[in-house]
Amino acid sequence: MISVKEALKIVEANAFVPNISEVPLLESLGKILVEDIFADRDFPPFDRVAMDGIAINQKVESFKIEFTQFAGESQKFLKSPENCIEVMTGAVLPSGCNTVIRYEDVDIQEIDGVKIAKITIPLTEILPGQNIHRKGDDRKAGDTLLKKGLKISPPEIAVMASAGKTIVKVQMPPSVAVISTGDELVEITVNPLPYQIRMSNSYLLAAALERVGVKANLFHLTDDKELLFNKLKEILSNHDVILLSGGVSAGKKDFVPEILTDLGVKKLFHKVAQKPGKPFWFGKTDEGKTVFALPGNPVSTFLCFCKYFLERKNESVILDKDLFFKPDLTYFVPVKTYFQEGKLMATPFEGSGSADFANLTDCDGFVELPAENQVFKKGEVFEFIRFRF
Amino acid sequence: MISVKEALKIVEANAFVPNISEVPLLESLGKILVEDIFADRDFPPFDRVAMDGIAINQKVESFKIEFTQFAGESQKFLKSPENCIEVMTGAVLPSGCNTVIRYEDVDIQEIDGVKIAKITIPLTEILPGQNIHRKGDDRKAGDTLLKKGLKISPPEIAVMASAGKTIVKVQMPPSVAVISTGDELVEITVNPLPYQIRMSNSYLLAAALERVGVKANLFHLTDDKELLFNKLKEILSNHDVILLSGGVSAGKKDFVPEILTDLGVKKLFHKVAQKPGKPFWFGKTDEGKTVFALPGNPVSTFLCFCKYFLERKNESVILDKDLFFKPDLTYFVPVKTYFQEGKLMATPFEGSGSADFANLTDCDGFVELPAENQVFKKGEVFEFIRFRF
Repeated sequence: MISVKEALKIVEANAFVPNISEVPLLESLGKILVEDIFADRDFPPFDRVAMDGIAINQKVESFKIEFTQFAGESQKFLKSPENCIEVMTGAVLPSGCNTVIRYEDVDIQEIDGVKIAKITIPLTEILPGQNIHRKGDDRKAGDTLLKKGLKISPPEIAVMASAGKTIVKVQMPPSVAVISTGDELVEITVNPLPYQIRMSNSYLLAAALERVGVKANLFHLTDDKELLFNKLKEILSNHDVILLSGGVSAGKKDFVPEILTDLGVKKLFHKVAQKPGKPFWFGKTDEGKTVFALPGNPVSTFLCFCKYFLERKNESVILDKDLFFKPDLTYFVPVKTYFQEGKLMATPFEGSGSADFANLTDCDGFVELPAENQVFKKGEVFEFIRFRF
Repeated sequence: MISVKEALKIVEANAFVPNISEVPLLESLGKILVEDIFADRDFPPFDRVAMDGIAINQKVESFKIEFTQFAGESQKFLKSPENCIEVMTGAVLPSGCNTVIRYEDVDIQEIDGVKIAKITIPLTEILPGQNIHRKGDDRKAGDTLLKKGLKISPPEIAVMASAGKTIVKVQMPPSVAVISTGDELVEITVNPLPYQIRMSNSYLLAAALERVGVKANLFHLTDDKELLFNKLKEILSNHDVILLSGGVSAGKKDFVPEILTDLGVKKLFHKVAQKPGKPFWFGKTDEGKTVFALPGNPVSTFLCFCKYFLERKNESVILDKDLFFKPDLTYFVPVKTYFQEGKLMATPFEGSGSADFANLTDCDGFVELPAENQVFKKGEVFEFIRFRF
């Protein structure tokens, strides 16, 4: 049995290599960028007026207003340095001007058909060059705006829009099949017999996948060797990544590992020193497709998915209660988190074990308690795996 | 000019009242549940075997195995109390049995066609009732599983699946129009003239809305009174919520507040004591439609959207650097966060003001620094508004 650390390392080293595709800008949201994005021009592209007001050349008490420079107009010029130009936020700074005074600090009156602006604050408060966002101040043409490898969030979308990037090269999500197994499971539309339960794991995983931009195909297979072989063969041929739940433990109908091996999926590990989720099986085909055969108990399924499939985030939490756990296993406990003065606190909900998933609805994630320790004290810090965003 | 706190209170008190709809289970993900969900049966619905192994009635050294109880089979019964039944995880506990011993702790051999299980651990280590997940242990039939008002995440999807909830009553997202204004803006497909810039705000907002499950319709309107009136009228009639950017400040072509008033949108406030985003205008129609007229600078637009439109989360961060800000305004600064021993630390990126959105790509959210203070010391805790998930 390998450790959680080793298992994670194997999963990461054998991750399915995503396809690269070019997609329209807004479709790139949430995906990994695989090209650098450069500024095609300076940011801002011109000396940009940053406040509505007047643009001046010389600091004097009052100015004749020559005209107005609006945003979206080509650059005008100040005819006489004693005068001023009314300027609007977003406009090009007129040539001949070097400072912008906002409307709040001037009084504009029309006298004999001539518009005069009078400064209403001490002249000493006007700083040369104020309220101008200078050409290239943020970025120069040719600068790298975004580096490949990052995950695209709304600010990156805005940056690409402003650089005219309408088509973006990104990693595409894998095509994923979610397969539940187990003869006791029935469809959620069915009224179960006393010894049956409705399937919930495939819905759990489908929802969790959708959260990260993956539309999964759902299947249910009964514990029948021939059926498992034929159906898994077909599903493997149509998908990049397979998430199975159930059928990986010591039971007499736990055929999944055997059938996967028969289908040419190479086992990379089976069983991890953790609770819940110990029977987790992970393998890979020659073509690089990966199979996560997760234990069937809902909490185990979900923990393994969150720990081994989702992107890692380096979050940590502070326990607000002591915990004890004797076995030499990494112990994952559902926790409810809350902020206390900038600290992320975690209240553990041990519940009644790996089949009790109803208490996950009170929780935000799992805390990871290392196998080496048996006592986990209030106030100690541990790794946190968030599942609620 | 009102405070951030007052502005937020007004926005919350006047939020668009969402439509209620019944959607298929998986479509309810990320939405607000508007009905309580009850357990239609006990969880688990039967005494459930929690380990593969044997089920016994009496603690003795060895047992004759009568047969196997598989998951998905109706309940069998132990004929003789000295014997045992092989049981699989997820199966009903056979009647006449009260304890399950996992395979790891027994040795099974076939002697003269009879299968015998011998216990391989001290009998004292076997606890009566072990490895059985009792009927109703997690929830009883009729118990409330989920309360209305919560946001549906994957665990809630799983709970509803197991309760047979195929159709769920939820709040539907509003229909949202995103409108950028400004004569200096051109489409992202266009090569801008020297005094033009490509529009980025509508892409920013569209992406941020998509993150919360809202597909927005995008529009661009130039600074023309008649056009603004006619187009805004049409857009208002087709949408529940309008997000405008630009045209709300003191500029001569800042027609937005005036036109909105002409269209019967009642102003609830204009200008908030904050930086960036001071010119924010907020209003509501008689039919309850809301209009967020956001300032046009990208950082202002985004800050106002995150602070006033997105769901509040009660996160706080610890500054890792001193900040100074003199004006009597709430100051929102983009920050990059990281975890340090369970504490969420924040490095501020003041950048070059509200038009410099390129530095948002280095950040995760905004820290909110109260107007009352001018000095914000390293180590102090402030409210955090996350925009990167």
